[in-house]
Amino acid sequence: MSGERRVTAFAPGGIGNVGPGLDILGLAAAGLGDSVGAEWTRAPGLMILDPGHPELPREPERHTAGLAAAAVIERAGIDRLGGRGIGLGVHKGLPLCGGQGGSAASAVAAAVAVNRLLGAELDALSLIEACLAAEEAVAGRHADNIAPSLLGGIVLIRSMEPLDVVQLPVPDELYVVLVRPEQRMRTAEARSVLPGKISRATALRQAAQVGALVAALALADYALLGRAIDDRIAEPVRAPLLPGFAEAKRAALAAGALGSSISGSGPTVFALARGSSVAERVSTAMTAAYAGRGQRSEARVAQVDRAGARVVEDTGGAQ
Amino acid sequence: MSGERRVTAFAPGGIGNVGPGLDILGLAAAGLGDSVGAEWTRAPGLMILDPGHPELPREPERHTAGLAAAAVIERAGIDRLGGRGIGLGVHKGLPLCGGQGGSAASAVAAAVAVNRLLGAELDALSLIEACLAAEEAVAGRHADNIAPSLLGGIVLIRSMEPLDVVQLPVPDELYVVLVRPEQRMRTAEARSVLPGKISRATALRQAAQVGALVAALALADYALLGRAIDDRIAEPVRAPLLPGFAEAKRAALAAGALGSSISGSGPTVFALARGSSVAERVSTAMTAAYAGRGQRSEARVAQVDRAGARVVEDTGGAQ
Repeated sequence: MSGERRVTAFAPGGIGNVGPGLDILGLAAAGLGDSVGAEWTRAPGLMILDPGHPELPREPERHTAGLAAAAVIERAGIDRLGGRGIGLGVHKGLPLCGGQGGSAASAVAAAVAVNRLLGAELDALSLIEACLAAEEAVAGRHADNIAPSLLGGIVLIRSMEPLDVVQLPVPDELYVVLVRPEQRMRTAEARSVLPGKISRATALRQAAQVGALVAALALADYALLGRAIDDRIAEPVRAPLLPGFAEAKRAALAAGALGSSISGSGPTVFALARGSSVAERVSTAMTAAYAGRGQRSEARVAQVDRAGARVVEDTGGAQ
Repeated sequence: MSGERRVTAFAPGGIGNVGPGLDILGLAAAGLGDSVGAEWTRAPGLMILDPGHPELPREPERHTAGLAAAAVIERAGIDRLGGRGIGLGVHKGLPLCGGQGGSAASAVAAAVAVNRLLGAELDALSLIEACLAAEEAVAGRHADNIAPSLLGGIVLIRSMEPLDVVQLPVPDELYVVLVRPEQRMRTAEARSVLPGKISRATALRQAAQVGALVAALALADYALLGRAIDDRIAEPVRAPLLPGFAEAKRAALAAGALGSSISGSGPTVFALARGSSVAERVSTAMTAAYAGRGQRSEARVAQVDRAGARVVEDTGGAQ
């Protein structure tokens, strides 16, 4: 037993609900993410040493990092604790309620850090399951932020029961633009406006867009990728909740974006672009569109994070 | 002007509504198809010289080959007829009302033959549009049989308005098994049982399967391809109209098929298999399943037809 061992993992944020892929397509964006440090404590049980933000709860059973850690301990076997406890320190690089997969990234980073600290070697699907249990309490049972944050890349959630995820090919010149206006969305609120029933024509059209998006990634067909960013289920009902979205999207397309839609349940708006210079231009145009309405916004341009969550610190003390 | 010139085109049949891809995914199967010969006639207008089957109409405006030919003439410009007419002779290699894309293949073969006879050089999208006009009258406005029959391969219909089709990668070891029991289905009948509204959960699940199917083709992931053949919209409501379907599908999977579902709107059942020997075994098992119920059936094993429709005879007389 030792108080010295500390493992820190980083998990990227990104885009959930990518275009037509409501609940089923997610993308990890390089750059911003959450980090969670896990260390042994003498006191048994889980403790949140730092929740990462003043508004986030200190109770492990109300924080996605704590919930994911608990689910990993359960899967790994509580014996591995050897009577000790684990303390978690969360560093939030991602905005709260921003639609960039922040709660998922905290869960994933915690799961990866605790998995390593315990020497548990749970596989990727087990870690995703653990994070799902955590996210369920906060944002609903969806893997489209968790899976790409853990695995990296662009991920299709084929099935939740049983869990089956597919890493999709990522074309080299693909850039994403993420623009977050000053507004907060509660995922539950954004979810409540989704229709319970969908016309067959719309359902089949949406399925065709998902197929086209996957084909576009595989064929590195950027124009097709843009045409496939066409969401007839979530975007039409969520757009009215997002002041400035329509203008930002229009500006993105006018500046050369392949496509643009809502990231997660918003308020972040994403755009896809071919090459970094177009992406920068798109980013500027989107920010200007918000500014033109008197809204402040934060933009970033990123490539796809292909690595996913990783341990970034392991002090190497006793396990 | 001459009565000698004769152009014959062949168009393959195949699978419409591939698995989860109701109305949006089609596959051309090598082997059987329809052929249409087009020749100049002195009498102006279109004439069906041979409808291809005693039950098919002789009126060009009621036969998909005649309708497609008329649509090609309209697009090419009626001037190209130079006052002459065109006679069409249809040879049906595909079963009537079988669910193997027979009416689409007749339309496609006629369109390709007439396009060549007229020297019109309409492009693929124009020819698909012409065939859509023909199919609309018979089977509804769907391109999932027409597009693969014309282009070959496995085709995703991303959009009908405007028409946008995507040829998907085809893994080398993919074989299809088509088993047609002695039963006829009217496409309109099979369509009437489809639900008008679909729950959001089912719609998103179906979209995920379409995405997974496309990913499986691109990654040559045969196991994933099998898991993606999971249709929760059409198969559940159409299966009860198809005596023996459940048994044939079960037999296919037990014999090693990757997946199995209804071809088009039936009664043909298809299965996918990796390699020809598994495909042969699956074919035998499916036929035996029908036989065990006292139903006769015809089976064939095929690779994907990658070439699509082609001119097979051009006598080279005057244009």
